Amino acid sequence: MLDAAVRTFGQRGYMAASMDEIAELAGVSKPLVYLYLNSKEDLFTACIRREAKALTEAVRAGARPDLPADRQLWSGLTAFFTHTARNPDGWAVLHLQARTHGEVFAAEVAEVRTEIVAFVTQLILAAAREAHRDPDLREREVAGLAEALVGAAESLADWANTTPGVTARQSAATLMNFAWMGLGDLMAGRHWTPPDESDEPAGTDGGGPHGAGVTAAQAGRTSPVR
Amino acid sequence: MLDAAVRTFGQRGYMAASMDEIAELAGVSKPLVYLYLNSKEDLFTACIRREAKALTEAVRAGARPDLPADRQLWSGLTAFFTHTARNPDGWAVLHLQARTHGEVFAAEVAEVRTEIVAFVTQLILAAAREAHRDPDLREREVAGLAEALVGAAESLADWANTTPGVTARQSAATLMNFAWMGLGDLMAGRHWTPPDESDEPAGTDGGGPHGAGVTAAQAGRTSPVR
Repeated sequence: MLDAAVRTFGQRGYMAASMDEIAELAGVSKPLVYLYLNSKEDLFTACIRREAKALTEAVRAGARPDLPADRQLWSGLTAFFTHTARNPDGWAVLHLQARTHGEVFAAEVAEVRTEIVAFVTQLILAAAREAHRDPDLREREVAGLAEALVGAAESLADWANTTPGVTARQSAATLMNFAWMGLGDLMAGRHWTPPDESDEPAGTDGGGPHGAGVTAAQAGRTSPVR
Repeated sequence: MLDAAVRTFGQRGYMAASMDEIAELAGVSKPLVYLYLNSKEDLFTACIRREAKALTEAVRAGARPDLPADRQLWSGLTAFFTHTARNPDGWAVLHLQARTHGEVFAAEVAEVRTEIVAFVTQLILAAAREAHRDPDLREREVAGLAEALVGAAESLADWANTTPGVTARQSAATLMNFAWMGLGDLMAGRHWTPPDESDEPAGTDGGGPHGAGVTAAQAGRTSPVR
């Protein structure tokens, strides 16, 4: 039933979605929907919580603390964009619908977002500590970097899910180039190159119609080890 | 009257804000508010449009096409964060309230955001063309980079406006380090250093209680020219 609800809320929007439609898609009667979940509000809240949990679990599973910092970031980003590409309705519920229909729903996703920012902050701090024993990135600055990274990822996920032919791997590569290499390096023609697909867990591609894993600009370059 | 409305909507939220309160703050009678603007919805829409216009004008005025790409980005970011720090209620209306209270308001800000992303895309393309005559950044990848940059800036502005003591200059420096240098350089201890304050137009600081313009980590470094 939640599958049907996420699909309906994600595709039609919270306002336009009707309980009739959700019941029909779920193959159950409308009274049964109300029996399990009191109201449209409760059903929507249940959708937000389920999708938030699935997303944070996917990102946490993708972060691999055994890898060097750039590969950790790459695997976390790939997990994030793979999840949002495979669950576009869930992402629309979380990032668009939940923030557009009142403060109660917005507060639900704000809490999850705070958790994700804290998680990313710890990853960046750990990587900075590893890179130089006397870290000169102060905690507050790292918190700002984590906010920037999360905001960039959210924005790119919206864009990827509404732009035909952008794969999860392409989105991850774009953000990796942006966040790890920086525009300064990109302007000078220096790119970050994703590791071979054979190194990756199977199926990290978004499965879009044009499933090429890397962009032309990145193909055939060697990875600049820093 | 719009000043009073933006302040009330920004600080109390769209739902909690009352027309009585806005009229009182504006020093006019409630019938007069309704005479000028039909309804709370119309008043809120007028606030969104005014704040969107002010923000885009501030960013466009900050972008200085005569400067090298990194200084252009720096001046644009400084203009953006200075504007959002000085107009926290306007920013809350645009980025929080307008997206939280229904699809009509959300569509208003989505349109402005699309414009800003297009503007940033053109800036990045121009900088890339300047940097190397045969640009290997494809238009689609640049569109992705622009989405990432805008998302990062939005996220940082929310954070700066809710974190005591973060100045506009600090936010701009954090995003400059993130977006221009990249985490890879930061991990290796390489930072982007803002130009001397004396080079800047007056008053680019957010005016927070701890108005130090640069973070400790950046003070006294020379700018890595790339």
